[in-house]
Amino acid sequence: MKTIDINSDLGEGYGRYRVADDEALMPRITSANIACGFHAGDPVIMRRTAELAVANGVRIGAHIGYPDVQGFGRRAVSFDAKELSALTLYQLGAMRAMADAAGGTLGHVNFHGALGNLSFADEDVARAVLQAVKDYDPTLKYVTLPFTAAARVAESLGLQTVNSFLADRAYTPEGLLASRKQPGAMVTDTARIRARVARLLSDGEIETVDGSVRKMPVDSILVHSDTAGALDIATAVREAIDAAGYAVRAF
Amino acid sequence: MKTIDINSDLGEGYGRYRVADDEALMPRITSANIACGFHAGDPVIMRRTAELAVANGVRIGAHIGYPDVQGFGRRAVSFDAKELSALTLYQLGAMRAMADAAGGTLGHVNFHGALGNLSFADEDVARAVLQAVKDYDPTLKYVTLPFTAAARVAESLGLQTVNSFLADRAYTPEGLLASRKQPGAMVTDTARIRARVARLLSDGEIETVDGSVRKMPVDSILVHSDTAGALDIATAVREAIDAAGYAVRAF
Amino acid sequence: MKTIDINSDLGEGYGRYRVADDEALMPRITSANIACGFHAGDPVIMRRTAELAVANGVRIGAHIGYPDVQGFGRRAVSFDAKELSALTLYQLGAMRAMADAAGGTLGHVNFHGALGNLSFADEDVARAVLQAVKDYDPTLKYVTLPFTAAARVAESLGLQTVNSFLADRAYTPEGLLASRKQPGAMVTDTARIRARVARLLSDGEIETVDGSVRKMPVDSILVHSDTAGALDIATAVREAIDAAGYAVRAF
Amino acid sequence: MKTIDINSDLGEGYGRYRVADDEALMPRITSANIACGFHAGDPVIMRRTAELAVANGVRIGAHIGYPDVQGFGRRAVSFDAKELSALTLYQLGAMRAMADAAGGTLGHVNFHGALGNLSFADEDVARAVLQAVKDYDPTLKYVTLPFTAAARVAESLGLQTVNSFLADRAYTPEGLLASRKQPGAMVTDTARIRARVARLLSDGEIETVDGSVRKMPVDSILVHSDTAGALDIATAVREAIDAAGYAVRAF
Repeated sequence: MKTIDINSDLGEGYGRYRVADDEALMPRITSANIACGFHAGDPVIMRRTAELAVANGVRIGAHIGYPDVQGFGRRAVSFDAKELSALTLYQLGAMRAMADAAGGTLGHVNFHGALGNLSFADEDVARAVLQAVKDYDPTLKYVTLPFTAAARVAESLGLQTVNSFLADRAYTPEGLLASRKQPGAMVTDTARIRARVARLLSDGEIETVDGSVRKMPVDSILVHSDTAGALDIATAVREAIDAAGYAVRAF
Repeated sequence: MKTIDINSDLGEGYGRYRVADDEALMPRITSANIACGFHAGDPVIMRRTAELAVANGVRIGAHIGYPDVQGFGRRAVSFDAKELSALTLYQLGAMRAMADAAGGTLGHVNFHGALGNLSFADEDVARAVLQAVKDYDPTLKYVTLPFTAAARVAESLGLQTVNSFLADRAYTPEGLLASRKQPGAMVTDTARIRARVARLLSDGEIETVDGSVRKMPVDSILVHSDTAGALDIATAVREAIDAAGYAVRAF
Repeated sequence: MKTIDINSDLGEGYGRYRVADDEALMPRITSANIACGFHAGDPVIMRRTAELAVANGVRIGAHIGYPDVQGFGRRAVSFDAKELSALTLYQLGAMRAMADAAGGTLGHVNFHGALGNLSFADEDVARAVLQAVKDYDPTLKYVTLPFTAAARVAESLGLQTVNSFLADRAYTPEGLLASRKQPGAMVTDTARIRARVARLLSDGEIETVDGSVRKMPVDSILVHSDTAGALDIATAVREAIDAAGYAVRAF
Repeated sequence: MKTIDINSDLGEGYGRYRVADDEALMPRITSANIACGFHAGDPVIMRRTAELAVANGVRIGAHIGYPDVQGFGRRAVSFDAKELSALTLYQLGAMRAMADAAGGTLGHVNFHGALGNLSFADEDVARAVLQAVKDYDPTLKYVTLPFTAAARVAESLGLQTVNSFLADRAYTPEGLLASRKQPGAMVTDTARIRARVARLLSDGEIETVDGSVRKMPVDSILVHSDTAGALDIATAVREAIDAAGYAVRAF
């Protein structure tokens, strides 16, 4: 039976603040990208999220971001390669300590917000952060978007990549995410989300913003945790996966 | 030949700020307690300090503090046991990542400032942070002051402790640090520092604030990095150690 | 017609985080205690909250707290008098700039969380922060709980105080808040809240935790913004005020 | 007698950290640009620096930066206009509170580090922050570099500008600062600094990096506080001013 992973960004609260219903989402996913205290998360939330992942049999990943809680890691900030490398190592180490304490294992890594976007566009940035991942632990899997600078750099470094598909975002003919500013960039209709996932799993292809069809590799489907209707979208994705005859299983 | 360790708190800068001449001190010590980004330190400084330690053959430890750069971890803050445990794990993981990246090994741990003081006085606090250390890695050595709540808890947990002596601080008849507010609490005269270290190493005893003499266990001598005359004091300590016929070697 | 004020703590979000529905609460109150960026709030949120207050004819106050977003200002932290004075001045200035920019006026001040609690219990702390208020602008009104150290200090300094009543909290026979740890400390039943407010407004008295009755001065009723059922409680308070024949008006 | 101002960036410490000898520099200058707690400074340091300015008869200004102590406000960060406006208002209000508490007056404003550089290059950024200054207090003077976007925007808004000259930096033929990466961008020789100031004051002109001469308006000379030899440079500037027959006086 063919398998597919479902990943989600969790542990994105801070102190008393929460943005998602992690308890409700965790049973619906197989891989959790957990915020590491820089753009969101704090030690207590990280640990509890790791424990929640272990309790649900969910794979633990480090979701690495800029040190900017106020901007939620979404503001572009200029860091040099040395800083990028060091902040990646720091967050990996902190997240592994939490995974271990929860009785789990740190298994993957990806990059959040403005850092993620920059790593998709800028090879130097991608190299700085992915070399740090490799130096830290070359067996960590890297969850990425395909056709990006980061995906190319990861391949050249020999890191094992996991191709993630965003079921609720439109794609360009090049296979990249369409800008949020573009009309129709966000797909919110659950029937359409179901149809997109079904087609991707059956035929390995998606329809892009200009109506063209393109092949798209996929190992995991990302479910956003913090959008209105997150649970509905997670359910729709799951139904499409079931209908396509796939088993949901961590990559 | 008998051996003694010299430890110092390093990596206490933040961003562009520095408080000590780490490059000059590192060759004079055998164990570095490196700030982990909470009370001081940032990922770049932590990594560079770890590299400096490796280059000088110095043992790397995690110097764990409250999340309060503005207060340099010296403000008392009320954290519950769950928070103390989580912030300890977080900093241990981050520091180990840096030690590993530098080609070194995380070997010990101690607690900074207000957290350190509280752990010496309050068994619940000591238990929260030391249990986290044990859960993280029971082979880490714990650098402590003897006769404290933390020393007792560490022993009960089976952690290996390293008794540190503060050459530039006066002690009470109970073997604890005299309050800084007490006249004579700070010993700044290098001749006196040399004499205190000589007596401690030769006879295993110190003279306390009331003139009484008490036995004092010692495995390491702390050299403050951020006081005026830090290098002079480090030199005086070293001379006293040499004169006593000890070799300086990491615990 | 007799009048009473309703106050609430608003603007308690941070970056993308929110804890209350400020838009829904603002029309139900007459005085807003706005977080000033230390325990919560950031410049954008402060300004928007001030604009919302002006649009609703609500009086703007500075809600001053410890610099600790992660702990939401609820962790006790040891600051000296000089620090307390300076952090009070800083937040007052920042809040006034936002009130002015919104076309409003900074009219009052109170203290949040652990700082508030300490100012109620410790005269030195109360003096440090209230002297700073007086130095900044002696016409600012100080919203307080009666029978506290802070209320006494404010009176001795000649500051005009506003007695705030917490409709959803039990009181001791001394007229102080019962500890949250005590059973029954939180009053959540809206019928009871209505009855308490009615009695207070009609007879100037409350029933305390031991069943005794005591006189209680009141100029304003606090409606918590961040509890489940905040809007229901606000509505219950308003109904009780209407029934008692009072007009709701800023102090 | 013709007069010239000397300005310097002060109060750039944080918590226990210091970067300059503010006490030694203050008597040598007439205008202090004081960090407002975002890129550097904290409430205690701001207040003490304001008091030091008042004691030395030095004009107090708000030196406004990005909220990034770790990066000292030197990292480029993407903020939108609404955020830039709000963070400017916030810092102005906080600084005025400190100036008032010290018995002084907030008299001017300028922008630090990456925010300053961006305001010199980007009219939208300049407009966002300078409109906030004007809204806050249109009588505040704006210390700027001439020939920049910010200078043009300030003029269009009707703000009174003060042209600052950097005695230790080379200029392009366009009258802008030469990039620090360019050889010779930093002028460290005090004799050359003296000569440049002398020529500027006598003839209103400077020699630029390509050897060409250009007219340069000047109302104030900036003395960096945090460079090696800051005091020597300050002394050299002062000597050149005296020799040119100018009195040093706040703009």
